[in-house]
Amino acid sequence: MNLVTFSQPLRGIVPPLVTPLLARDQLDEAGLERLLEYVLAGGVHGLFILGTTGEGTSLSYRLREELTEHVCRQVRGRVPVLVGITDTAFMESVRVARHAAEKGAAAVVLAPPYYLPEGQPELREYLDHLLPELSIPLFLYNMPPLTKVPFAVETVSWAMDHPEIVGIKDSSGDMNYFHQLCLLAPRRPEWTILVGPEHLLAESVLLGGHGGVNGGANLLPRLYVDLYEAACLGDLPRIRRLHHIVVQVGELLYRVGHHPSSIIKGIKCGLSCMGLCNDFMAEPFHKFRPPERLKIEQALARIQELIQAAG
Amino acid sequence: MNLVTFSQPLRGIVPPLVTPLLARDQLDEAGLERLLEYVLAGGVHGLFILGTTGEGTSLSYRLREELTEHVCRQVRGRVPVLVGITDTAFMESVRVARHAAEKGAAAVVLAPPYYLPEGQPELREYLDHLLPELSIPLFLYNMPPLTKVPFAVETVSWAMDHPEIVGIKDSSGDMNYFHQLCLLAPRRPEWTILVGPEHLLAESVLLGGHGGVNGGANLLPRLYVDLYEAACLGDLPRIRRLHHIVVQVGELLYRVGHHPSSIIKGIKCGLSCMGLCNDFMAEPFHKFRPPERLKIEQALARIQELIQAAG
Amino acid sequence: MNLVTFSQPLRGIVPPLVTPLLARDQLDEAGLERLLEYVLAGGVHGLFILGTTGEGTSLSYRLREELTEHVCRQVRGRVPVLVGITDTAFMESVRVARHAAEKGAAAVVLAPPYYLPEGQPELREYLDHLLPELSIPLFLYNMPPLTKVPFAVETVSWAMDHPEIVGIKDSSGDMNYFHQLCLLAPRRPEWTILVGPEHLLAESVLLGGHGGVNGGANLLPRLYVDLYEAACLGDLPRIRRLHHIVVQVGELLYRVGHHPSSIIKGIKCGLSCMGLCNDFMAEPFHKFRPPERLKIEQALARIQELIQAAG
Amino acid sequence: MNLVTFSQPLRGIVPPLVTPLLARDQLDEAGLERLLEYVLAGGVHGLFILGTTGEGTSLSYRLREELTEHVCRQVRGRVPVLVGITDTAFMESVRVARHAAEKGAAAVVLAPPYYLPEGQPELREYLDHLLPELSIPLFLYNMPPLTKVPFAVETVSWAMDHPEIVGIKDSSGDMNYFHQLCLLAPRRPEWTILVGPEHLLAESVLLGGHGGVNGGANLLPRLYVDLYEAACLGDLPRIRRLHHIVVQVGELLYRVGHHPSSIIKGIKCGLSCMGLCNDFMAEPFHKFRPPERLKIEQALARIQELIQAAG
Repeated sequence: MNLVTFSQPLRGIVPPLVTPLLARDQLDEAGLERLLEYVLAGGVHGLFILGTTGEGTSLSYRLREELTEHVCRQVRGRVPVLVGITDTAFMESVRVARHAAEKGAAAVVLAPPYYLPEGQPELREYLDHLLPELSIPLFLYNMPPLTKVPFAVETVSWAMDHPEIVGIKDSSGDMNYFHQLCLLAPRRPEWTILVGPEHLLAESVLLGGHGGVNGGANLLPRLYVDLYEAACLGDLPRIRRLHHIVVQVGELLYRVGHHPSSIIKGIKCGLSCMGLCNDFMAEPFHKFRPPERLKIEQALARIQELIQAAG
Repeated sequence: MNLVTFSQPLRGIVPPLVTPLLARDQLDEAGLERLLEYVLAGGVHGLFILGTTGEGTSLSYRLREELTEHVCRQVRGRVPVLVGITDTAFMESVRVARHAAEKGAAAVVLAPPYYLPEGQPELREYLDHLLPELSIPLFLYNMPPLTKVPFAVETVSWAMDHPEIVGIKDSSGDMNYFHQLCLLAPRRPEWTILVGPEHLLAESVLLGGHGGVNGGANLLPRLYVDLYEAACLGDLPRIRRLHHIVVQVGELLYRVGHHPSSIIKGIKCGLSCMGLCNDFMAEPFHKFRPPERLKIEQALARIQELIQAAG
Repeated sequence: MNLVTFSQPLRGIVPPLVTPLLARDQLDEAGLERLLEYVLAGGVHGLFILGTTGEGTSLSYRLREELTEHVCRQVRGRVPVLVGITDTAFMESVRVARHAAEKGAAAVVLAPPYYLPEGQPELREYLDHLLPELSIPLFLYNMPPLTKVPFAVETVSWAMDHPEIVGIKDSSGDMNYFHQLCLLAPRRPEWTILVGPEHLLAESVLLGGHGGVNGGANLLPRLYVDLYEAACLGDLPRIRRLHHIVVQVGELLYRVGHHPSSIIKGIKCGLSCMGLCNDFMAEPFHKFRPPERLKIEQALARIQELIQAAG
Repeated sequence: MNLVTFSQPLRGIVPPLVTPLLARDQLDEAGLERLLEYVLAGGVHGLFILGTTGEGTSLSYRLREELTEHVCRQVRGRVPVLVGITDTAFMESVRVARHAAEKGAAAVVLAPPYYLPEGQPELREYLDHLLPELSIPLFLYNMPPLTKVPFAVETVSWAMDHPEIVGIKDSSGDMNYFHQLCLLAPRRPEWTILVGPEHLLAESVLLGGHGGVNGGANLLPRLYVDLYEAACLGDLPRIRRLHHIVVQVGELLYRVGHHPSSIIKGIKCGLSCMGLCNDFMAEPFHKFRPPERLKIEQALARIQELIQAAG
């Protein structure tokens, strides 16, 4: 049962969990269990499954349900579990959301429908139709590079009038947008603003955000939790040291290979190198081959050195 | 049972059929029947369901199956039925494709997975994985404005080495791309090249294409069939007269309202004005309201005048 | 002296002349003379200097004037000379335009100012301010991939109310836009519509355009003139044969090297291979090196074979 | 004479000065003088003329020289003057640069040539050709939304091997890029990294940048200097208060009107409301009309209230 009420912002590091797979449409259950315990031990404050990093839109609905059930069961309320319901088909979003609520998810997360671009009034009407179908709170997920359509600032402002909508994850990378979201925040003291891109974690928390949904926290949960905590304390020398490492994670781990999916591939490959879970990718992507894997291994070693040095 | 062998190109007008709906997730069966008989009576050479104009990605899987079954049953092999299987989840594409084959579809149609952009090598590998799962032929659907990822010319060239892939629908609007496709065509004399944007129907058929998958053929099947036939005959005065009307269909019917979905809304609204079917739209879109509907009615009247005048 | 009145559309092939250079800021005068006589002998119907292919915006104003004077003097009214005045600084456009008029140019050609994007009302006001400063007619030049800002259809419609503006060159590659321009044409029977991309020459002339401003006509003026004439006559078999060659010119000559300037480099390199003029490029571009030059030589040979075969 | 050696980074606020105009091609000399003394009195650490905010590319070369001479003469070395030389024509960039050096500018500032996009190797070769023509140091100006072409990180890394290039102004708004620049910085302790977008001033200085080239510092130099100084001191409560105001400057002053030039129009209009200088805009833009001016007046009043309240 879900007891999270979101009467306070959701603060901290909420990894967008990768989905460990053994093969097409087959969950790596043992890997998932190890991964969950690893990130929880790293101090993360929540989990977001079936997001972009989780390859949510690439998975069969059967597997999405299996994953949701498995994660909720294993987490047992230790942290809130957020479940992605982004879809182009309204009915399928509703179906995934209902299943998530039944299994104990704390909230669902929705990016705009992403095939034919809708206008902002249509997006608001869409939310209006969706809210009565949900039994748990909703986070918005702003991801215009992938959905084409953003949640415009005015749409977020409109959303804040709906208590069922409790926050936003902004993965646009556009700090102008983010700072405008922060201008709106005083209207809803419990409203959550989380940032997606990891290199923005420090500055966003310093200037009004509540934390990060950072893919790298699958691999290095403690690093992101430490940086988040340093930012909460305003410990600038420590922020700079850890931020510097986070930027290098992006540099060394996310740009191996040639395609935009390199970030997910880098994270899954790194987890496999660390013995946590399998790195099989859902179609249309495939895992790194040996030459890329070698680079990821070296990058992980380099990042570990930097973490040691930073103390 | 499906007897189409695609030993010749699929030539002519293949309307991307709208999906008549009564309400959310509810098929307008009577409207669908009227619409089917109307376009067949207009002389169309095939049907494409569950495409962009058919709101395929917005429909529940249950409704996609209901529609496929209904259309195949009613068409009874009078023309080939092509079924869209574009999806972000490989397993769901396969499921829709299998159902379509069972119900008697002649072929399936696939645009690239459209959430996180894949590279061309990944897209080719994706097709490589998909082909063994299919029991009927496959058409490629090039639609980069919506999928972000095109079928690059080299990928089409690669696809032509696979006999299960029988042709391509190009909705890019980029005639440079289209003409390059035509350069490849001699390698597979039975390979089909169809064009999506209606204003390109005349020129594409004049210069090497086989026909059009034109949304306007829902509303005015005879106009598009006539233009196609004039283009086959090289009757330039008649081509110019009919092409001129088709450009005005775009001008008058597809730009009412402010959003990119205006084309589908205009077509559905027009069909409703003509008494053929309901104009309910799947979320996140909604049908035109009275002021827009009035414009569509006037536009239809104007187009009818132009058709009369063209003789 | 300029005797062209543009009381009829400018019909035919108007090469966007390359600017032969010996070195930085130094005209290849002998090469320019040979090139001019070569394209005139090929039957072209006008010349457009200082356009994109002419590297107009990369040249010093001194050189732009030298070129204009040289071309006008040598052409001696055999065909109309159009001079590009596109600039980000209003005063400099005016200066180039005045000089062109003095030297006998028939018209000037303007793309929208291209640094900070202006709105369409601003663009109309800009034209309103510019027209009184001009003493010869103006062609619009629609080139949104490079200027960011298009001449929107409504702006072209507005321009047609100004007799000093006599036509448009459309290099957008968007046939939807082009066909909409053609819908406007009956309002000004003498208004000219020319198309930039070469692969669109056949279809645009078949469906309402007046000709092409095609870079390839520097290299192969006779091929483009022949295709234009075939299109005027509606000789479809000949159109298809020549169009097929033009598409291969694009395929073989314009995609050597990796950068968007490959078209200009390919044309200049080809002219150098043919002994017509130097292939030096103005900064920030440089001419092809030996490996690329070899490809261009082979491509030219292949195109000549195709031309022979087409008869 | 120029005595600035850039042996240390250029730190602080460097307003991209607007160019006060009385009419087309006519400098508002008295306004320029007032504006210069006003921003200098506000504590700014340098001046950047002929940038985007200065409408550099819209001005005649005559006026660019007049402005450069006037500014250098009046500033008399109190702060370094940086002069924009961005152009599509290499020779004209060189001409503006030489004039600037003669008049006593401390450095010149170059964005990539911005008509036909060049590749990064071409951009490096372009810089290689440009450097021997310059007699004062060069700053790079990264502005991909307007130039299409960025200075890629590898190109900046290459530039750092050239002592004549002393720093970069990044107006991309992309903090991922900015943080990567900061990773390179240790190689050249005197290398300067400035940020363009004002809402990024606080976070960039907190995490490794040296200051801002912020348009709003024309209007409110003290606000930006105060925020810069608070960021240097790491005074987080004060940073948050002032940053909050800066974000509202963007919200209230830069989005009046419909076109992308609204930022410059807002700044010039505000300066006119404050009695500092004329708000005439160079073509293709025009100054705000009374309704927009009223909004700017109200916005300025509101910002002043916020500044008062922040103390």
